[in-house]
Amino acid sequence: MLEYSVSFPVRYYETDQMGIVHHSNYIRYFECARSAMMEEWGYPIQKCEEEGVTIPIVSVECHYKHSALMGDVVRCVAAVDKVPMAKMVIHQAVYNQNGDLCAYGDVTLGFLNKATGLPTRCPEKIVEIISNGLKNK
Amino acid sequence: MLEYSVSFPVRYYETDQMGIVHHSNYIRYFECARSAMMEEWGYPIQKCEEEGVTIPIVSVECHYKHSALMGDVVRCVAAVDKVPMAKMVIHQAVYNQNGDLCAYGDVTLGFLNKATGLPTRCPEKIVEIISNGLKNK
Amino acid sequence: MLEYSVSFPVRYYETDQMGIVHHSNYIRYFECARSAMMEEWGYPIQKCEEEGVTIPIVSVECHYKHSALMGDVVRCVAAVDKVPMAKMVIHQAVYNQNGDLCAYGDVTLGFLNKATGLPTRCPEKIVEIISNGLKNK
Amino acid sequence: MLEYSVSFPVRYYETDQMGIVHHSNYIRYFECARSAMMEEWGYPIQKCEEEGVTIPIVSVECHYKHSALMGDVVRCVAAVDKVPMAKMVIHQAVYNQNGDLCAYGDVTLGFLNKATGLPTRCPEKIVEIISNGLKNK
Repeated sequence: MLEYSVSFPVRYYETDQMGIVHHSNYIRYFECARSAMMEEWGYPIQKCEEEGVTIPIVSVECHYKHSALMGDVVRCVAAVDKVPMAKMVIHQAVYNQNGDLCAYGDVTLGFLNKATGLPTRCPEKIVEIISNGLKNK
Repeated sequence: MLEYSVSFPVRYYETDQMGIVHHSNYIRYFECARSAMMEEWGYPIQKCEEEGVTIPIVSVECHYKHSALMGDVVRCVAAVDKVPMAKMVIHQAVYNQNGDLCAYGDVTLGFLNKATGLPTRCPEKIVEIISNGLKNK
Repeated sequence: MLEYSVSFPVRYYETDQMGIVHHSNYIRYFECARSAMMEEWGYPIQKCEEEGVTIPIVSVECHYKHSALMGDVVRCVAAVDKVPMAKMVIHQAVYNQNGDLCAYGDVTLGFLNKATGLPTRCPEKIVEIISNGLKNK
Repeated sequence: MLEYSVSFPVRYYETDQMGIVHHSNYIRYFECARSAMMEEWGYPIQKCEEEGVTIPIVSVECHYKHSALMGDVVRCVAAVDKVPMAKMVIHQAVYNQNGDLCAYGDVTLGFLNKATGLPTRCPEKIVEIISNGLKNK
């Protein structure tokens, strides 16, 4: 398993009138972790798009366990345990500063050729990074 | 099955640099449909909260089939087919103006006593509305 | 003065832990009114972009008078009183269902040639629509 | 002038189909800087609210100079140069990693007694922190 994470404070506008982080924002936290992961790969999403591949979301699931609150610093995790082919499954989680699991779930990504709009395979660079990473574990 | 829906145009800020509605916004569209549903019940979420019950999200899943775009008018659906007890499962979907299914998935809600923070049962009013509604189908 | 408006219910995720619509969302409500305005012109923003002109924001100001709440139906207004040249000033406001003024302010837009990224003049169509509209008042 | 800042990467969902950070998000970046400022004061917003004072926004203005993009790390600034009484004016700015000024403007805050909903004066602690800070400059 290759694991990446990024931490940041909850933002005020992310809370709702229940006094907790609105559930839709964990889906966005998941994305922040994926962006950090691709950044660490030296292959950020915008580079991928520049090279003609967009990465649309195929599906998202999120299980909510513990509310994140204003004042919390959340740690957002993205992890991969398989070399992607047509799709890439990312295991995601959000923890608060006490280590409480706030939310978790899998996000499945596809790959589209930007020019044709048609499905394509995972860019070779991503395949390499992940397979090398998994080998060295 | 009791089905409720609400339609509105895609908002510009909901698009992302892929040129499509960002995937996290469908989770918010789902919520708009649930709000419309509770409004039609004559029992909107804020009334429920005033009576001391909040409705946190237990889990969300969303499958993405077709991108909604700026200029689209999306129809957001919430449907129930079972009388809720401790939890309430809502079947959700988003269609564009051509009837294309953009996204769908189930959202599971819980019920919390606002004062104690502890799980509680589905408010009696909601149980009645749903069981009457399902009987009259 | 040419005035356009659009009404819709406050969305739950737009509230914050103060229990009111988060102040950043009025900026988004303003945009919804501008989109409705361009739609009524028969010249929606996406058409404008397809024809090679993007409309970046030059400045925004917003004065907050009365909090919009969950359960409110807000009416969002965009108004023009001058034919635009290099810039277009939109007078904006948000009211609740009781006619209370929630927020107001001016938004100034520019025009960019999408291909060159350079400032350009207001598209001829918009100039026509506004000058005709103002004449017929 | 007391100046505080916080830096973070642009998030993908903050971009729009123009390929830039949506203008409403700078208003949110401004808030992130204010939150960081209050955190550095040892008097975060949630503490203020717990002590019975909420801080609604009176007005916001934002001038856009340079688009922030996906891949950018923005530095968000909040600065005070006067001891607040009934209102508090915050000078705000957002820079990218090259030091380009992306956006700037003033945000004016008020103070509300949470229990009565009526305007109140700036909490004594904030007055102290700011007046001490300005003296030591």
